Amino acid sequence: MYSFLSHIVCPKCSATYDASTPQGLCRCGAPLLAAYDLDALRAALPGPGAFAGRSPSLWRYHELLPVRAEQSEVSLGETMTPLLPLRRLGEAMGLPGLLMKDEGLLPTGSFKARGAAVGVARAKELGIRELAMPTNGNAGSAWSAYAARAGLAMHIVLPESAPALPRNECLMTGADLCLVQGLISDAGRIVGKAVQERGWFDASTLKEPYRIEGKKTMGLEIFEALGWRAPDVILYPTGGGVGLIGIFKALRELQELGWMPEKAPRFVSVQAAGCAPIVKAYEERREESSFWPDSETVAFGINVPKALGDFLVLRALYETDGCAVAIDDESILREQALVGKLEGTYICPEGAATLAAARRLRKEGWIAPDETVVAINTGSGVKYPEAVRLEPRALLRKDQAIPA
Amino acid sequence: MYSFLSHIVCPKCSATYDASTPQGLCRCGAPLLAAYDLDALRAALPGPGAFAGRSPSLWRYHELLPVRAEQSEVSLGETMTPLLPLRRLGEAMGLPGLLMKDEGLLPTGSFKARGAAVGVARAKELGIRELAMPTNGNAGSAWSAYAARAGLAMHIVLPESAPALPRNECLMTGADLCLVQGLISDAGRIVGKAVQERGWFDASTLKEPYRIEGKKTMGLEIFEALGWRAPDVILYPTGGGVGLIGIFKALRELQELGWMPEKAPRFVSVQAAGCAPIVKAYEERREESSFWPDSETVAFGINVPKALGDFLVLRALYETDGCAVAIDDESILREQALVGKLEGTYICPEGAATLAAARRLRKEGWIAPDETVVAINTGSGVKYPEAVRLEPRALLRKDQAIPA
Repeated sequence: MYSFLSHIVCPKCSATYDASTPQGLCRCGAPLLAAYDLDALRAALPGPGAFAGRSPSLWRYHELLPVRAEQSEVSLGETMTPLLPLRRLGEAMGLPGLLMKDEGLLPTGSFKARGAAVGVARAKELGIRELAMPTNGNAGSAWSAYAARAGLAMHIVLPESAPALPRNECLMTGADLCLVQGLISDAGRIVGKAVQERGWFDASTLKEPYRIEGKKTMGLEIFEALGWRAPDVILYPTGGGVGLIGIFKALRELQELGWMPEKAPRFVSVQAAGCAPIVKAYEERREESSFWPDSETVAFGINVPKALGDFLVLRALYETDGCAVAIDDESILREQALVGKLEGTYICPEGAATLAAARRLRKEGWIAPDETVVAINTGSGVKYPEAVRLEPRALLRKDQAIPA
Repeated sequence: MYSFLSHIVCPKCSATYDASTPQGLCRCGAPLLAAYDLDALRAALPGPGAFAGRSPSLWRYHELLPVRAEQSEVSLGETMTPLLPLRRLGEAMGLPGLLMKDEGLLPTGSFKARGAAVGVARAKELGIRELAMPTNGNAGSAWSAYAARAGLAMHIVLPESAPALPRNECLMTGADLCLVQGLISDAGRIVGKAVQERGWFDASTLKEPYRIEGKKTMGLEIFEALGWRAPDVILYPTGGGVGLIGIFKALRELQELGWMPEKAPRFVSVQAAGCAPIVKAYEERREESSFWPDSETVAFGINVPKALGDFLVLRALYETDGCAVAIDDESILREQALVGKLEGTYICPEGAATLAAARRLRKEGWIAPDETVVAINTGSGVKYPEAVRLEPRALLRKDQAIPA
């Protein structure tokens, strides 16, 4: 069997749904998750070592993905991303075991490619022809690209104030793009109405169950790179939280398969100080977050005032003895420049926030010096020209020399 | 043996040099090439199948690379890039066997990462501590990133008019960056002077022999992906021409090893109509090109009026019954938007030029409909916001709906 997908389940009310027809949210309003026949999978595959010889792409984990047939895969060359040792930066913060999962090497330059690859492929397999979504940027870039690759129509609504480069990506991969004079919540309302009236499929964050399955492969790759062991700590920049939920889901599935030890890594949800609803809820030990008013941060990917999957993020933090940390924009930008200078990686502000959080948690003793720490860089820094504060050293005339 | 590098040789006057000390240009002024002990390599490795089980990175070909020891590798996760079938676009131009090597997935978003990874690693291995180069953009991005990763200093001089995003990349990966009120030739003169006076190493295009070895891996990956056979045609966007020279060098080395058939693919050098010195020289059947005055094109990576390695590019075209084609900017931009819409890949204008050339050569009958054609997309389109001509369909108020 190519996929061991069995059914769809609600993580809030436990209602189940048919996996062979398109599904949106649960009747109770919660996001739905894909479930697999793990007993059958365990009987069919000798162990996770079976993945090793396969091509270096997220599709190597197809048994744990929802796409039913190999010919349904939609690919733009979504490579396995590296788990880079950050030795100089790690030593500077007293964490020689610091690793960074660099998702900037995926098509469209961000981790959103994972959700889009699997989400689009499964949508097409289920007979869907037209997708729609609101976005602040990178998700739109990825879904536009994969929808075009699959031959599906993609309708995007983007706030007028959203960054320019993802807008270009949507346009240049053929999306039907409208801007709105408002926030992503306004874009969401417009998409919601269009979806109801025109029969398009709503591909918004967590409003369909398959994007998260793509994100899950981030966790599968991390665990495979570490020899099917968990690191001690995983730091994830949390906006909608889909990646964290996905990595945690990967962990639980692997544990249920008996392919990973029971000890979980401590999950750390990293947010921007200007938009930290998960951090607030965690500090108050609540099960859900509250809407964060007037949110603002340079890290636009984690500017999400209230996430649909907040309860799943918080559950992962509590179950793994994790925590949640808010980082101010100044610290984010300082860390972004420092990792670039010391390690040569130009990462996005969201990724830089996880490194700043590692630094702080090490300083506070929450992370021990000998622990293996994985920070997730969700995308390439090049798409954030608005965040660059550095200047060239000199502007020379033709007859001048480089100053000493 | 990790590397079978034996010596350095001049492709123009055949002078040889020691490979264990840093080398620049030949005494005769020509660029130098690395030579390998292919007899010893043939005896040591059973065949190219030996590469198959190795990690999916350009370093898998280490026997054919100049870096002497595994611990000298400098890595930012330079994955093997995909050879994407472009079925819809290919069928639209009567070329169902059209493939695109997508180099936009490399660190810093372009094929320049290959040359930088190998060039920087070898420079460090030879004891060099400070590098300098003039650049119009992507080479500077890549060399800054890899130099930082290696802990080397990188001095860059960039024309003030060069695109903004590569400038940001240089700054954000810690390069010592100066701008000049002039062209890349002015930047080159300033770097040349600094190199002489301060003992920095000149890493300009083809002024050291190892960048080309990194670019060679593009060819090795193409041939491996095709089962160690050559395609019928390879189209390469030609500025400095290092990639084409590298792919051709890979071919000849593999043929000498007996690992590839004697039949070579026809190499096509694709240039912009506003900067086509190689095309002009090819049409006049000359061995070298002449300086192209007042060059101009939206594809800044191939805005090179006179390449140091022009004679090597022309040699590859003549030896393989290839050709050279000039594409105007309008056709480049049209092709870029079309491949995005049909295939979901947002490629750079240089890459789009190769697809426009394939379309024209098919139309003229120079490429047959059943041939396997590899077009090289040298980088991601996202770094060229200046080239975007498309606009969103509508700007909506919050209370408006997506227009029909």
